[in-house]
Amino acid sequence: MITIAVDAMGGDHAPRPEVEGSVLAAREYGVRIILVGQPNALRAELAKLAAPNLPIEIVAASEVITMDDHPAQAFRRKKDSSVHVAARLVREAKADGLVSAGNTGAVMTVARFLLGTLESVDRVALAAPFPNAKGGISVLLDVGANVDSKPEHLVQFAVMGEMYYRATFGNRRPRVGLLSVGEEEIKGNELTREVYTRLKKSPVHFVGNVEGGDLFSGIVDVIVCDGFIGNVALKICEGLALEIFGLLKKSIQSSLASQVGFLFSRGALKGLKKTIDYTEYGGAPLLGVRGVCVIGHGRSNANAIKNAIRVAAGLARAQMNDKIEQELSAAAVHPDRPGIRAPEMRKT
Amino acid sequence: MITIAVDAMGGDHAPRPEVEGSVLAAREYGVRIILVGQPNALRAELAKLAAPNLPIEIVAASEVITMDDHPAQAFRRKKDSSVHVAARLVREAKADGLVSAGNTGAVMTVARFLLGTLESVDRVALAAPFPNAKGGISVLLDVGANVDSKPEHLVQFAVMGEMYYRATFGNRRPRVGLLSVGEEEIKGNELTREVYTRLKKSPVHFVGNVEGGDLFSGIVDVIVCDGFIGNVALKICEGLALEIFGLLKKSIQSSLASQVGFLFSRGALKGLKKTIDYTEYGGAPLLGVRGVCVIGHGRSNANAIKNAIRVAAGLARAQMNDKIEQELSAAAVHPDRPGIRAPEMRKT
Repeated sequence: MITIAVDAMGGDHAPRPEVEGSVLAAREYGVRIILVGQPNALRAELAKLAAPNLPIEIVAASEVITMDDHPAQAFRRKKDSSVHVAARLVREAKADGLVSAGNTGAVMTVARFLLGTLESVDRVALAAPFPNAKGGISVLLDVGANVDSKPEHLVQFAVMGEMYYRATFGNRRPRVGLLSVGEEEIKGNELTREVYTRLKKSPVHFVGNVEGGDLFSGIVDVIVCDGFIGNVALKICEGLALEIFGLLKKSIQSSLASQVGFLFSRGALKGLKKTIDYTEYGGAPLLGVRGVCVIGHGRSNANAIKNAIRVAAGLARAQMNDKIEQELSAAAVHPDRPGIRAPEMRKT
Repeated sequence: MITIAVDAMGGDHAPRPEVEGSVLAAREYGVRIILVGQPNALRAELAKLAAPNLPIEIVAASEVITMDDHPAQAFRRKKDSSVHVAARLVREAKADGLVSAGNTGAVMTVARFLLGTLESVDRVALAAPFPNAKGGISVLLDVGANVDSKPEHLVQFAVMGEMYYRATFGNRRPRVGLLSVGEEEIKGNELTREVYTRLKKSPVHFVGNVEGGDLFSGIVDVIVCDGFIGNVALKICEGLALEIFGLLKKSIQSSLASQVGFLFSRGALKGLKKTIDYTEYGGAPLLGVRGVCVIGHGRSNANAIKNAIRVAAGLARAQMNDKIEQELSAAAVHPDRPGIRAPEMRKT
């Protein structure tokens, strides 16, 4: 049975959604859960949910990292935080993965340093799934684990993104695109032109450059970029979606006819909100760490936590990390498949 | 009287919106217009509009650059295109500025090489205005004239963005932000950390780093970034807006009640579309060239062309380029105001 350690203290409304989501996941997916946090608070939440026979246990952590904590400081100073304890459970193989809706920077820092990176991976990457116009899911990575990436890092991101997509969205051969400013090979900046050349020679199903609009067009499944760009992109999407909904609301309130109309079309708006609801897609996995780490939004509700647990369990079950290692090391040892790792970056 | 040369052959529906927009601008803003393109087609369009006493003349250009033309090739091979001829009119001081809704890459290339850059400017920048949540306009630059910018280029973009904003949106002291991945000075990549330090010491009203979501929050007026990021950002916005409208339409069509409701709230949706309609904001100026160059979207209608002419005339009238030169060269000669130009980049 797959075991997932859940940081039960990290989210904006912790520990309620964490405990409720864990109960739902244990019931629906047959996953064993370790809730990490303040035992009294967790027992009190569990008691409300009447879940006596589920495989859920509690492990104590005396500290809590807040959203205002500085990631590096929190990592060094709050060594008994719920994130630290959950990560140690994974490191000690007492859990297969961890899920947290806490401070993203802090969770990334703790996971990176306590779990370490895979043998063939130089830098971890945070991957963000979102719905596309074709009714499917597209994944963008890296969305903020790194800045100033080198070409070999982006090629590793491509392999990791491919393996995550395969394990999570049931597509055997996801199409991988490189985020750039034009479709032709010569378009882009120094970084993307070099990555294009390497991806063409790699085992990845690389379909070429894609532009910003293709994040949503659904013409590719996995979109690779440097973490600075990816983070800006992600925040633009959140900002613009809020802006459009705000304008829509204002427009609707501006006339009586619109308001009457709104009463009727409210269902449509709700449907729309559900379609673009991040909680349905199971959070953002931090790829490249030893073990599985899935980070949810601070606003995660019980459904978001449940889905994040589903994704984490799926990645563990699919042995994604073994597959990443195989793909990256196969590429490194076969001179006819260069490009995955730069020779100078190979660990000996 | 300010004279604007209008590339009348460039847009998707040329020359109708170009001619109609020119007539509107000549009538409303007291601007003199030179329509550049195929004289017979232009005379035919003008004849339909009954505008006999307006200061509009026609200058012939025998070639047309299409949206499918490769910018650099079109620049070299179609030397008598309507864009080339319009740019030459500006270079020869027969016009104060040019407006085109043609192939953006080609217009940028022609303007950059035929007009040249300002003495104090190393790289030109394309600026994109868009509405923000506070009901104002924010401007993002560069959105695609450059990739792999150096720190001094971004500092120059900040000065140019400030002068454009001041001349166009009537704000004496626009707030300038640097697009990054966190608000603190130490956040960002190598480029933005260096630019942050230089902007702090510059005469620009620099308010610090902003994140992707702040493009729409209205907390800053001018947002500076490398053209690779800016281009990706712009295309993400277009793609996401289309995606949200598509989803909204689908949601509305999914039930009878929604459809009935839609009939009532249609006005609200139209209001929304108008609010985010790029045609209201007058196109994207290419900053840093000698003369004024404003580029409209290929889909520009007459209203968009009219507004682009208004913006171009406003920049010429405000003598924006002189002010950019003053600001940049003042910064270069005052050792206590470093940062605008790197010493090694100063022209002697």
